[in-house]
Amino acid sequence: MNSMYILKVECSDDKGLIHRITGVLYHYDLNIVQNGEFVDSEKKKFFMRTQFSGNADSKKILNDLRKILPKDAILNLDKDRKKSLVIFVTKETHCLGDLLVRHEYGELNADIRAVIGNHDDLADLAKKFKIPFYCVPYKNGSQKKSEAKVVSILERYRPEYLVLAKFMRILSNSFVSQYKNRIINIHHSFLPAFAGKSPYKQASDRGVKIIGATAHFVTSHLDEGPIIAQDITSVDHSHSVADMAQAGRDVEKVVLAKALGLALEDRIFVSGNKTILFD
Amino acid sequence: MNSMYILKVECSDDKGLIHRITGVLYHYDLNIVQNGEFVDSEKKKFFMRTQFSGNADSKKILNDLRKILPKDAILNLDKDRKKSLVIFVTKETHCLGDLLVRHEYGELNADIRAVIGNHDDLADLAKKFKIPFYCVPYKNGSQKKSEAKVVSILERYRPEYLVLAKFMRILSNSFVSQYKNRIINIHHSFLPAFAGKSPYKQASDRGVKIIGATAHFVTSHLDEGPIIAQDITSVDHSHSVADMAQAGRDVEKVVLAKALGLALEDRIFVSGNKTILFD
Amino acid sequence: MNSMYILKVECSDDKGLIHRITGVLYHYDLNIVQNGEFVDSEKKKFFMRTQFSGNADSKKILNDLRKILPKDAILNLDKDRKKSLVIFVTKETHCLGDLLVRHEYGELNADIRAVIGNHDDLADLAKKFKIPFYCVPYKNGSQKKSEAKVVSILERYRPEYLVLAKFMRILSNSFVSQYKNRIINIHHSFLPAFAGKSPYKQASDRGVKIIGATAHFVTSHLDEGPIIAQDITSVDHSHSVADMAQAGRDVEKVVLAKALGLALEDRIFVSGNKTILFD
Amino acid sequence: MNSMYILKVECSDDKGLIHRITGVLYHYDLNIVQNGEFVDSEKKKFFMRTQFSGNADSKKILNDLRKILPKDAILNLDKDRKKSLVIFVTKETHCLGDLLVRHEYGELNADIRAVIGNHDDLADLAKKFKIPFYCVPYKNGSQKKSEAKVVSILERYRPEYLVLAKFMRILSNSFVSQYKNRIINIHHSFLPAFAGKSPYKQASDRGVKIIGATAHFVTSHLDEGPIIAQDITSVDHSHSVADMAQAGRDVEKVVLAKALGLALEDRIFVSGNKTILFD
Repeated sequence: MNSMYILKVECSDDKGLIHRITGVLYHYDLNIVQNGEFVDSEKKKFFMRTQFSGNADSKKILNDLRKILPKDAILNLDKDRKKSLVIFVTKETHCLGDLLVRHEYGELNADIRAVIGNHDDLADLAKKFKIPFYCVPYKNGSQKKSEAKVVSILERYRPEYLVLAKFMRILSNSFVSQYKNRIINIHHSFLPAFAGKSPYKQASDRGVKIIGATAHFVTSHLDEGPIIAQDITSVDHSHSVADMAQAGRDVEKVVLAKALGLALEDRIFVSGNKTILFD
Repeated sequence: MNSMYILKVECSDDKGLIHRITGVLYHYDLNIVQNGEFVDSEKKKFFMRTQFSGNADSKKILNDLRKILPKDAILNLDKDRKKSLVIFVTKETHCLGDLLVRHEYGELNADIRAVIGNHDDLADLAKKFKIPFYCVPYKNGSQKKSEAKVVSILERYRPEYLVLAKFMRILSNSFVSQYKNRIINIHHSFLPAFAGKSPYKQASDRGVKIIGATAHFVTSHLDEGPIIAQDITSVDHSHSVADMAQAGRDVEKVVLAKALGLALEDRIFVSGNKTILFD
Repeated sequence: MNSMYILKVECSDDKGLIHRITGVLYHYDLNIVQNGEFVDSEKKKFFMRTQFSGNADSKKILNDLRKILPKDAILNLDKDRKKSLVIFVTKETHCLGDLLVRHEYGELNADIRAVIGNHDDLADLAKKFKIPFYCVPYKNGSQKKSEAKVVSILERYRPEYLVLAKFMRILSNSFVSQYKNRIINIHHSFLPAFAGKSPYKQASDRGVKIIGATAHFVTSHLDEGPIIAQDITSVDHSHSVADMAQAGRDVEKVVLAKALGLALEDRIFVSGNKTILFD
Repeated sequence: MNSMYILKVECSDDKGLIHRITGVLYHYDLNIVQNGEFVDSEKKKFFMRTQFSGNADSKKILNDLRKILPKDAILNLDKDRKKSLVIFVTKETHCLGDLLVRHEYGELNADIRAVIGNHDDLADLAKKFKIPFYCVPYKNGSQKKSEAKVVSILERYRPEYLVLAKFMRILSNSFVSQYKNRIINIHHSFLPAFAGKSPYKQASDRGVKIIGATAHFVTSHLDEGPIIAQDITSVDHSHSVADMAQAGRDVEKVVLAKALGLALEDRIFVSGNKTILFD
């Protein structure tokens, strides 16, 4: 009985790497279905994602790969399967609503285990789709305590990815470091970018003609983590601040769903502060 | 014999403005072909662009309009005609080349009178299309002297618009203020924006998925003037810095041509730091 | 107490129309907030949409307008208010899900009164959002009977717009003619268009690089009614037929929501077989 | 002294193909810089493009590859170098102008050897850039004779690709078959597609909101060959037929340049009637 597997390899660049890696797969009579490689010539690093079908003994394969790859190789071999998620929200419905509808009707190859909100506004939306909702308020000075509560919820659900679907609180560095390249955030962003409060007011004042959104992994540098997906939509002077915010929401939910899809299919590598996508 | 005219009105908002303005045109038996109005409700300002055909006595019309409009009204009435341009360049060919080809074959409703370069690299390109080229070097400390030379060239050609088609020198505030809302610049820009040197290197390091360009009027605040047009193109990790720069050039020339077209058809108002476009 | 109103005028073109119409509004001390006009110079027809605030006596205004406008004028004056909808579906969830989430959380200025499906697959989705669902099967030869049932449901809810959110049955000409320019359909469409069965299979076989969607009013000519909104997304050879269908769904829901928004704000005129949008 | 090479392989799918191919390159101590593979699972065909650097003996490599690949393998190994082009035109300047500017200033990795026009309108444009121009009129009934003249010009220049940059004549099947997958055409196209005369008039009558362009290889089926690149731009009811045609031209030149760039870097495979692009 054949399964589908995804192998991810990341190591120092060297001659013959593809030959060596595919040799191991060939040895075990596995059939490569899709393949992607990239060499970051500046950092002299090699990245490869291979999707193959067959009947694989993961332990043996990883063992054999380690023998023929540079010492610094980071290997990841997994069956193609549903990943588990916990979604973080505040009050905005558009991203959570989109993810829940996709999830319910099989457009999201994932298992949404819970929704955590720092307000309870979206409890009802989660409930409609029978997903457990936890309200963990973040009050001034209580970040540490709130985060401890979040951690205890996460320990229960053990999600592989955390999705910040318009979660308006900052996660601590220690929290973020525990979920390296596993927290995906959606960020409104513009050409040019507007920092600080009321970004759509600033965008309107500046008369931008384009509004965008960026999905990225969360690092300790706020809104500065590796970019996974970006898109834009057009606006003009006749758009009120509210219209611009609506246009922004429409882009955000599309971009977040796209980024999440890439993560769920193990299509993302992170090199330094940038992503390499095999899509 | 009928001509086409464009009337631009900008004044404090008031009830009945459209009725009053169109009344004057109706009185002179003129036929409105295209009309655009916008009220900036925050600034309580009214903007109107009217394109009409007929046989108009501009002086009389403006006189009548002044009588029925708020005191602060700024009026502009002109036949629809070719505007004159001078283009400023440094070394990059893509924007100048695009404008010259459009100009030569009737895709640009303008009269390019001269090209000024702070290097002479593009003299040959201008010459191919028989446009006078002036090289005005900008050396350290010589900005004042160079600008004086530029001014003397402009006095000769009296252009209505200056187009900075990848001109890599900064214009002085006093120069800029003489051409208020008449200098159009094309600026590479990203999501998020990257300031300083080597923007494409920065974009590549950050792994952006989108590269953009912004055409704007030049004000004393560098790259911060009112935005006229913006567009983007997609890139990914496999794009080298050079590939990203090429993608940027391809967007820049399209965006600059679009912005210039809007200016040449008198479709742009500037309100505060933003544009209102009747396109 | 001030309200917001929308006036739509459509008539033979003539000099002074804007002046006359705005004169009536000025007479009643109403304040124009947004205005759009268009002259179809080929058909010699004039179109105007005016949004104004104040305290209006609609009957008087319409009466006065009729006196000063060409005999063929079609007038529409209404308060800016929620319109009522009935949504038609078959089995696909993406458009209905998107509309229901927007509706529930105030992103859709409408009142969804019911969902009608020719299958009952989406009954559960409608129920989550507490919208009545009616299953009206369409079997071979039963179209007439099914449509009679649909009509009886619509008589109960009296919707202003019908939204075909991936409704896979054909409506009869007599039905369509009763809802002229009030039925909005979302149609997958490509560059070039593919007719017949399995459009995504055809698109994949042809190796298209772009997949699109078109929202249009339904006329008796299937998929040929006036276009309201269109958009596209990029695909490539690595997209399977299923991937292309998913990309198509993602565009469809965005385009349908956009078109519906334009209809709900009375921003659409239909002239011949094309729309004029004041957005 | 290292060079850059591009190897293209196309054959029946089989296990271990990547391993075998990269094994040959490894054997000759060559360094893979960029790699792309695709399996068309329906046709059971394997496609691979490999860019490698080193000092290669092409004959030996091809020999070794043939030994380890399926019998039906089509192999192509070439140094990364400038390809030669001949451009075909009629009267429209936008595509030819764009290609000539790119060519002149190093944005096109190609050698434009000649321009052939069925009218002489563009002789002057070619001359500006010192490219030989040949006028070969196509009159009623003279296609065969005209094509013979074209063939004799091509024999002189021996171009690797023919670029139809708005060439408004039909090439015979026998001509096309001599340049299989080597003739690139740019075609206006819409959502939905409009066949026949005056496509922009048809698009305007139908009120399309999007205008597109498609670059494709020419086959004996007019406008039906494998698609290389597509893009679109937005339009609305206020665009005249002339405005739509201008918007179309702006997209066409971008799409043609993109498609040509992919061809010049040997990034295109053709499988059945679709392209596989390793970009």
